[in-house]
Amino acid sequence: MNVNRHYTREFVRTFFTSPAAVDGEDDSAKMLRNAAQLRGMQAPDVWVPDNEDATAPPMRTEGVENVIEIVAEYGRDFPGEIHPRVVWHREDATTRYLGFQQILKITTSDSGAIEHVDGFVIPEVGDIDDWKKADECLTIAETEAGIEVGSLSMSVIVESGEAELALTDLREEMGKPSNNLERLFLLVDGQVDYTKDMRAMTPTGELPSWPALRHNTSRSASATGLIAVDGPYDDIRNIDGYHERMEENRAKGIVGIWSLTPGQVVAANKAPLPPTRGSWLLEVNGRQIPLEDEDDRQVYQGDELGLKETGDGRYVLRFSDDKRSLTVEELHETLQDLTSYIPSMNDIVDSTEEFETAKAAGKGAVSMTQSTTLVIDGIKVDLTKDRMWDKATYQAVQTPIFLFQYVYENRPDQHEELAEMYGTDTVERAMAVGN
Amino acid sequence: MNVNRHYTREFVRTFFTSPAAVDGEDDSAKMLRNAAQLRGMQAPDVWVPDNEDATAPPMRTEGVENVIEIVAEYGRDFPGEIHPRVVWHREDATTRYLGFQQILKITTSDSGAIEHVDGFVIPEVGDIDDWKKADECLTIAETEAGIEVGSLSMSVIVESGEAELALTDLREEMGKPSNNLERLFLLVDGQVDYTKDMRAMTPTGELPSWPALRHNTSRSASATGLIAVDGPYDDIRNIDGYHERMEENRAKGIVGIWSLTPGQVVAANKAPLPPTRGSWLLEVNGRQIPLEDEDDRQVYQGDELGLKETGDGRYVLRFSDDKRSLTVEELHETLQDLTSYIPSMNDIVDSTEEFETAKAAGKGAVSMTQSTTLVIDGIKVDLTKDRMWDKATYQAVQTPIFLFQYVYENRPDQHEELAEMYGTDTVERAMAVGN
Amino acid sequence: MNVNRHYTREFVRTFFTSPAAVDGEDDSAKMLRNAAQLRGMQAPDVWVPDNEDATAPPMRTEGVENVIEIVAEYGRDFPGEIHPRVVWHREDATTRYLGFQQILKITTSDSGAIEHVDGFVIPEVGDIDDWKKADECLTIAETEAGIEVGSLSMSVIVESGEAELALTDLREEMGKPSNNLERLFLLVDGQVDYTKDMRAMTPTGELPSWPALRHNTSRSASATGLIAVDGPYDDIRNIDGYHERMEENRAKGIVGIWSLTPGQVVAANKAPLPPTRGSWLLEVNGRQIPLEDEDDRQVYQGDELGLKETGDGRYVLRFSDDKRSLTVEELHETLQDLTSYIPSMNDIVDSTEEFETAKAAGKGAVSMTQSTTLVIDGIKVDLTKDRMWDKATYQAVQTPIFLFQYVYENRPDQHEELAEMYGTDTVERAMAVGN
Repeated sequence: MNVNRHYTREFVRTFFTSPAAVDGEDDSAKMLRNAAQLRGMQAPDVWVPDNEDATAPPMRTEGVENVIEIVAEYGRDFPGEIHPRVVWHREDATTRYLGFQQILKITTSDSGAIEHVDGFVIPEVGDIDDWKKADECLTIAETEAGIEVGSLSMSVIVESGEAELALTDLREEMGKPSNNLERLFLLVDGQVDYTKDMRAMTPTGELPSWPALRHNTSRSASATGLIAVDGPYDDIRNIDGYHERMEENRAKGIVGIWSLTPGQVVAANKAPLPPTRGSWLLEVNGRQIPLEDEDDRQVYQGDELGLKETGDGRYVLRFSDDKRSLTVEELHETLQDLTSYIPSMNDIVDSTEEFETAKAAGKGAVSMTQSTTLVIDGIKVDLTKDRMWDKATYQAVQTPIFLFQYVYENRPDQHEELAEMYGTDTVERAMAVGN
Repeated sequence: MNVNRHYTREFVRTFFTSPAAVDGEDDSAKMLRNAAQLRGMQAPDVWVPDNEDATAPPMRTEGVENVIEIVAEYGRDFPGEIHPRVVWHREDATTRYLGFQQILKITTSDSGAIEHVDGFVIPEVGDIDDWKKADECLTIAETEAGIEVGSLSMSVIVESGEAELALTDLREEMGKPSNNLERLFLLVDGQVDYTKDMRAMTPTGELPSWPALRHNTSRSASATGLIAVDGPYDDIRNIDGYHERMEENRAKGIVGIWSLTPGQVVAANKAPLPPTRGSWLLEVNGRQIPLEDEDDRQVYQGDELGLKETGDGRYVLRFSDDKRSLTVEELHETLQDLTSYIPSMNDIVDSTEEFETAKAAGKGAVSMTQSTTLVIDGIKVDLTKDRMWDKATYQAVQTPIFLFQYVYENRPDQHEELAEMYGTDTVERAMAVGN
Repeated sequence: MNVNRHYTREFVRTFFTSPAAVDGEDDSAKMLRNAAQLRGMQAPDVWVPDNEDATAPPMRTEGVENVIEIVAEYGRDFPGEIHPRVVWHREDATTRYLGFQQILKITTSDSGAIEHVDGFVIPEVGDIDDWKKADECLTIAETEAGIEVGSLSMSVIVESGEAELALTDLREEMGKPSNNLERLFLLVDGQVDYTKDMRAMTPTGELPSWPALRHNTSRSASATGLIAVDGPYDDIRNIDGYHERMEENRAKGIVGIWSLTPGQVVAANKAPLPPTRGSWLLEVNGRQIPLEDEDDRQVYQGDELGLKETGDGRYVLRFSDDKRSLTVEELHETLQDLTSYIPSMNDIVDSTEEFETAKAAGKGAVSMTQSTTLVIDGIKVDLTKDRMWDKATYQAVQTPIFLFQYVYENRPDQHEELAEMYGTDTVERAMAVGN
C-alpha cells in the first residue's frame, strides 16, 4: 500500500474539531458522523476528529474506534483533509505513550481508515526535541502500517512557552537527516493552555489575545513553508468578535482559524475571501467607521464628525474634540486622507487585469482610481483615490487572488456557493488572472 | 554551615529596592533599616537592598557594610526573601570585579548575614556567557563561604538588547553541567536602561512600554520555571497608572512588579489577588467602562451610550456614532455581548467548588451563571451571563487561586489583612479547593 | 589604493532611494543626478542609488553604468553616505549572480566611483548563511578592486520571515573568523515584500504596521552595534501619518526611516531632532490632545472634557462618559496626572546643564520643574510638573542630544538650517553639554 499524500497545501482557512466520543448519547460517534457529512461552506478545509481535550478521558478508547469507523466510512467523500488529534504531553511520558498507541491503532487498522487520514495533530508539544519524539512515533506507525515514511503530515498545537521558543528552531531542524520533520503541516496556536502555562490572568477570565505568540507562529510558518492557524474563539455567539479576530490574524499572515461549530466554519471559510461588494471607511478619532452606501453616495451617520459651510467659501470640519476651518481644497485633501476603500473581489480582479495588460505592454506601474461622493451633514464632497500599482503592490494584492484560486481548485464542493457570491463571470476572471 | 535555601518559588508579587547607603543622613543605613522592619502588605515578597543604581557610587563601600549589618540584625524576622543587588556590567570588567567583591564580602562576612540572604540580583547582564560569569562569581563565593554550591539564587535585570536575546538561550543552557544556572530565580525587566541601550526616544521623555520585552521575559520565565518581574514604574503618585500597568502585565503572565515605595508595595501585593467584590463592565466604543452598583443594579452613567423605548416594542440603542433599532431580544443579546463580569474571590471559590463537585460526580463541564440588572437611561435590562467551565477553563481560572494559596502559605504576616479583605470563611474555602 | 571607509556611524535618520535608470527620459540618470545634488535638510544621511525594485529589470544594465557615472561625478561633494542597492534573492542563484556582477562592476570601475561608495544594500536576504554569501561577494569584489577587505559596508533589507529570524543569530555570527559580517551597517525593514512573504492581507490593501518586526530589528541592531531603519511609507502625501510612524519608531529605538521623496527626506531629517518650542499635552479618553498655547496659557478647545465650578469650592470635571466632583486639590492632582510636557531643545539643554552642574557639585539627582496655566472652559488651573533627574534619567534624555551632536558633526551642510531652527546660542550650548 502506498497512498500518495504528498501535497503542498498553500492555505487552510478552517480547522474544525469534533469530539471523537460523546458520553450519554446512543451513538457516541454522533458528532463525528455529523461533521463527516458536512459539505460546501459548512465543511472545513481541515477536519480534526478530536480524541484529546474535546473527548472525556474515559471515552478515549471508544474515541479511537469511532475515528477509525467514521473515517473509513465517510473519509473518501469528505471534501477537506482529515487530521485526527491524539493525546500528547511534553511533560508526561505516559500521555505520550497513549498518543502513540492511538496513532498506531488508527494507522494499522484494517478498516482502510488510514487511506483517508492526511495526518495527525499533536497537542501540548514542548522543545523541538519533543516534536521529534512525535515525529518518530509517526515514522514507526508508518513503517508498521506499510505506508511511505513521511507521508503522514504532523500538525502541532503551540500551547506553551517552550513550544513558542521551539518555533525559531524549526527552519534549521527540518532539514536534518535524523528526523522526518518535513512532514510538518500546521502550526496551531492553543491560547487556553498557553494562558495557563504562562500563568496569565485577566480580570474577567477572558483569554489574553497574545499578539506576540500569533506573530511568532506566523513568522515561523512563513519561514518554513508551513501554515499558521489561530486557536479557538470560544465566545461562540459573538460572530462580530470572531470576524475582528480573523481580520487581525490576516494582517499577521494567519489566514486559518480553529472553528468550534459549523457556524464558525462558515464564517471562517468565507472571511478571508474578498468581499462581494466594495465599501468605504472614514477614519474618525482613530477608528475606522464603515460608511452607509446610499445610491453610490457614502453617507456618514455619526455625531463625532460634523461639517458645515461658513459662507466665505470655507468649511468647518469638526471632530468631537477639534474644529478646523478649511478651504474647499483643504477639505478635499483632509477627507481624502481620512477615507479608504475596501475593494470587492471584482475590483481586485479588474485592477489585476489592468496591471497585467499594462505589464504586457512594457509598463511597470499603473494608477488605479476609485471615486465616490462622501456626504457629511448633508454636504457632498467628491473624492477620488489614486493608488500607484507597481510589481510589489501587485504581488501583495495577489494574496487574496491566490487564496481564491486555491480554494476553487481544492474545494469543488464550494463552487456553487462561490458562484452565488461573486457571479460566474467574476469567478472565471478571477481564475484566469495571475498566470 | 549548610543553610538550606532550596525552594521552588511560584509567585513573586513585589520586588522592592532600598538604597544601601544614603549620603547626608546620620544613619546612612536608615532606608534599609526602615525597609527591614516592614510587615504585612507593606512588606514585599522580595526585598532588594540596592547597592547599585539607588546608591551613589562613592557610598557603595559603606553600602555593603550596611547590607551586612542590617540583614544580620533584621534578616531572621523579615517576612519576605532578601536579595541584595550588586554592581555588574556586561561591558566593563572593572564593574564586574567590584560586584564580585561585594558578593564575596556579604557571603563571607562573619556577621551571619548570609544565613538570611536568599540570593543576589545582577544588573546589566548581556549574553548568556555574561550570565555565566556572574553565576561563577556566586559559585566561588559559595565555596569561599562554605555554603552549598547553587544554594544562592541569582536574579538578573534584563536591560539591554543582548540580555533580551539571551532569554531565548536559557532553557538550553540551564541544564549544562559546566554552569550552575539552575540557581536562576527572577528575570526582571529594567526599562530605564533598556530604553537607553535601545536609544529609544519619546516626545515627553516618558519610557516606552516595551510590550515585546515583557512578553519575551514572561515567555522565557514560563519555559524555564523562573519568575518574570516588570521594571520600576517611576510615576510614583500615579496609582491608577501603576494598576493599569500591572493588569497589562498579568495578561502577559507577569505577576510581579518592581516597587519603589512602600505605597507601591501595598498596591502590588494586593493587585494580583482577586477583588473582594464582583463588578460589571460595559464595552462602549471599544473601552471597558466599569458600571456603578446601586442596589445590585448596574447603572451606566455616561453619555456615549443611550437607550430609549420607541413605543412599538422596539428600542433605540445609541452609540456616540451609531443608532440601532432593536427588538427586545436583539437588545438583550447586544447588551449581553457588551457586558462582562469581574468575579470576586468568593465567586471564584464558588465556581471552583461547583466544578470540583461536578467533576467528582463524573461530569466534565458545568455551566456557571451570573445575573444582574443593567440600567441605561433609566431603562432596566436583566442580563444573565453563562459560561461553560471545562477542565481547561477550570485550570486557567485556578491561577488566582494558586496565587492566593501560595501567598497565604508563605506570608503568615499577611493573614490578618487577607482575612479582613475576604472574610475568614472565604479564606478557608479558598485554601481548601483545588487539592 | 586604500580608501579609508572605517567609521562608527551612530545615527541614520534618512535612507533615500533613487531609481538608477528611468526609461523614457532623455537622461535615464536624471533621478540620480537630481538626488546627488541635494544639500542640507533635503539631502539624506544615506543615499541609495537603487538598481533593484525602483528600476525596471530591462534598465538595470544601464542602471549600473548610471550609478558609476553619477557617483564618480558627484560623490565627492555629496554630504551623506552613498550605498547603492543591487539585486539579490535568497531563493534565486541567478539573481544573486546578477547582484554580484553589479557589485563587481561598480567596485572595479576605473571611474573612481568606488572612492565615494560607502557600501552596498542587499535586498531579499534570507538565513544568516545567505547574508554570508553576500558578504563573500563583497570580499571578492574588494579583493578584485584592490581595496581593503571589510572596508565596504553591507546593509540588508529584512523582508522575509527567514531574515527576521536571522536577526537573532547576528551577534553570535558577526565575530566569526570565517566571515566579514563586521561590515554590516543598516538593518532596514522592507514591509512591502515582508507582507507578501508572510501572506498577510488587510481589507483596504494597506500594509500592516508589523510592530514585532520593527522591535526585533531594533533589538538586534542594538545588540550588534548596527542601525535599524524602518521601511518605506508609501502614502507620500500623508505627512501626518509619516510623522506618527516615525514617533512610533523612535519609541522602539528606530531613528531612521526610508524616504521616497525629497519631501520625506526633509521631514525625516528633522523629525528626530527635539522641537524648537515646548508644548503641552492633555490626556482625554486615552488620547493625548495637544493644547493650544495662548499667551503661555494652555487652552483646551475640545468638547470631550468639561470643567465647571459648583459654588461650594468644588469642581465638576466631566469626561465624555464620566463626571467627577473634586475639591480644588483633587482637581489639581487629576489635571497634573493628565498633562504632560514635550520639552524643546532649549529645555533639554537647560536640564542637562543643570544636572551636570549638580553632578559636579556631588549631587546625584536634581528636580526639574515645568509650570504653566491650563484653561478648560474658561477656568484657569496652575500646574507644575516636577521630575527627578538621576543618572539614568539623564542618560536616557541624552539620546536626542547625542543625535543632535552627531548630526551637527557629520552634516556641516545642515548647520545653517539648524541655526535657523534653534538659534545659534542653543546650538552652541547643545554642542557643549554631555562631554
